[in-house]
Amino acid sequence: MDKIIQHQELTDIVQAVFLAMGCPVDEAKTAADTLVSADLRGIDSHGVARLSGYVRLWEAKRINAAASINVVHETPSTAVVDGDGGLGLVVGPFAMKVAIEKAANVGSGWVAVKNSNHFGIAASHAMMALEKDMIGIAMTNASALVAPTFSKERMLGTNPICVVVPAGEEKPFVADLATTTAANGKLEILQRKNLDAPVGWIQDSNGNSTKDSHALKTGGALLPLGGDRDHGSHKGYALGSVVDIFSGVLSGANFGPWVPPFPAYVPMPENQPGEGIGHFFGAMRIDAFRDAQAFKKDMDLWIRRFKEAKPISANQPVLIPGEPEFEMHEKRLVEGIPLLEMVWEDIRLTADKFNIKL
Amino acid sequence: MDKIIQHQELTDIVQAVFLAMGCPVDEAKTAADTLVSADLRGIDSHGVARLSGYVRLWEAKRINAAASINVVHETPSTAVVDGDGGLGLVVGPFAMKVAIEKAANVGSGWVAVKNSNHFGIAASHAMMALEKDMIGIAMTNASALVAPTFSKERMLGTNPICVVVPAGEEKPFVADLATTTAANGKLEILQRKNLDAPVGWIQDSNGNSTKDSHALKTGGALLPLGGDRDHGSHKGYALGSVVDIFSGVLSGANFGPWVPPFPAYVPMPENQPGEGIGHFFGAMRIDAFRDAQAFKKDMDLWIRRFKEAKPISANQPVLIPGEPEFEMHEKRLVEGIPLLEMVWEDIRLTADKFNIKL
Repeated sequence: MDKIIQHQELTDIVQAVFLAMGCPVDEAKTAADTLVSADLRGIDSHGVARLSGYVRLWEAKRINAAASINVVHETPSTAVVDGDGGLGLVVGPFAMKVAIEKAANVGSGWVAVKNSNHFGIAASHAMMALEKDMIGIAMTNASALVAPTFSKERMLGTNPICVVVPAGEEKPFVADLATTTAANGKLEILQRKNLDAPVGWIQDSNGNSTKDSHALKTGGALLPLGGDRDHGSHKGYALGSVVDIFSGVLSGANFGPWVPPFPAYVPMPENQPGEGIGHFFGAMRIDAFRDAQAFKKDMDLWIRRFKEAKPISANQPVLIPGEPEFEMHEKRLVEGIPLLEMVWEDIRLTADKFNIKL
Repeated sequence: MDKIIQHQELTDIVQAVFLAMGCPVDEAKTAADTLVSADLRGIDSHGVARLSGYVRLWEAKRINAAASINVVHETPSTAVVDGDGGLGLVVGPFAMKVAIEKAANVGSGWVAVKNSNHFGIAASHAMMALEKDMIGIAMTNASALVAPTFSKERMLGTNPICVVVPAGEEKPFVADLATTTAANGKLEILQRKNLDAPVGWIQDSNGNSTKDSHALKTGGALLPLGGDRDHGSHKGYALGSVVDIFSGVLSGANFGPWVPPFPAYVPMPENQPGEGIGHFFGAMRIDAFRDAQAFKKDMDLWIRRFKEAKPISANQPVLIPGEPEFEMHEKRLVEGIPLLEMVWEDIRLTADKFNIKL
């Protein structure tokens, strides 16, 4: 029942929607490429399934399609970017480029972003560094769904961290992870199928462990990576907090429970201390540390040695972070992207809204 | 039965031991301060309990007490430091100072270190940034005790990440965490008491979950933060890998299963690709992003809001990362440091070896 669509056709549709919202041509293209990169990599929860959500945020005047994105503070190796309420899908690549330029000049570049919106998958931004032989880093805060250790209140987003490292003959190392036990997208899959969640993913409104995958709708919360105190949830909480501080506090964006929600129907938190959503990007030139070729040779050795680590089961070799997504990317480039019927219908309705013919 | 000792007396003893090993006076002092800072903060597993271990590494000629520590490669915002086989307790502060100087000049500084040894607790290095109104970052790789997801082979150390952030009126934010479910020190406590470990901390030599706290002695492994695949162990594995790559591959140190072991009686891994143990340090000036006073005010707000997050139990408020260690530090500064009888005996024997009178 799935619709199969080639990535270029899908990108063209998304680009037309962003154009119709009022984005300049180059920004509409950037936003479409960024969004569809998630579908190509198999991160379906962060791709075109969210297109109508971005449109609703724009309709609610929470996204500025004609944003003037600017560097508002800088040193040779750092900057703050004001996203002017624009699409995170555009603000993110702008800021990552600034980080890469600074790294080209002085070895590394670090850019905190305020006044932005959801930026898709972190990997699409961080991976911009790879073609320049740089390590890339991207993170973002997000609206509060996660309870700190010992709390029954949602205080943090799923706050992902992405680190990408170039290799030589091997595929790059791409770690892109929510700082929770499970990403919200995985929970949504269980919700749609009315299935239980594993213990350690969520708690109910009283802070008790629950398997009810719908518990977030009744005041429950996602749990930080680790799950509970005995298994290191204070570490997941600390990592999510670092992402929140780098993205939100360092930039002058909102942070903690004040981060704007993605669903346009959810009211804005009151007394917000900052502007919009925050991101944080980094780029480090490999040859700012050592010869890039020697480094890549060692990364190839690292990757091969870890792939050869003794597996528990002969059927499941050890994976390198990013490996499954590269395989999915290659497959979907050729075979097209499968969309759930409801996602395709949602895209059609969104296109209709702007009189875009599919 | 514990020995209680004032931190200055303990530091003097440790300094005398490092002096007797041949360290220059200022380096012996730095090393002693760094080591005892762990005991002051309550991280007893990384403090003076390891003093005799450092001495044994020196006796085995795996630590060079008269190391010539140098910057061997640099750009305005980055550097590689060669530790010349010196004490990590000395090499770490040297490299962190380089990062701080670079941040003072160009906004941020990032230093990868090769040819070093164990550096104590990451927090003692990262916290050097606080007095300069900088964010501090420290990480290190370590000998392999941790199995990647799907593997029964030990490939990574407990590879800690530390991030410290200055605040205004509140205590700084100090996240310092091993990228495993539980730090090895916590497992050692259970081993001494012959107690079971919680499920999710370790696996046996076949990769099966086990509660046997002694399983590491028979080919078992610590588990990455998350514990198993369902609970995000691939994320802990990815984070530990990032630490290994930044510390080991970027610097030219050893990495993965080739990192030198701490116990001097454990043979060196064969075919090592790099030099010694690797660390990675970072410093970012707050005012390289925004006004430092405004930032600190927002950090105070962040900290107070998280402290006020609704607790699950009225008896256990939500903690800020680093809060328990600051409380312990204040307590032990006044009341002294309690040492297990076996640790004190070990220190006495070590002092005896160098004819140091206690």
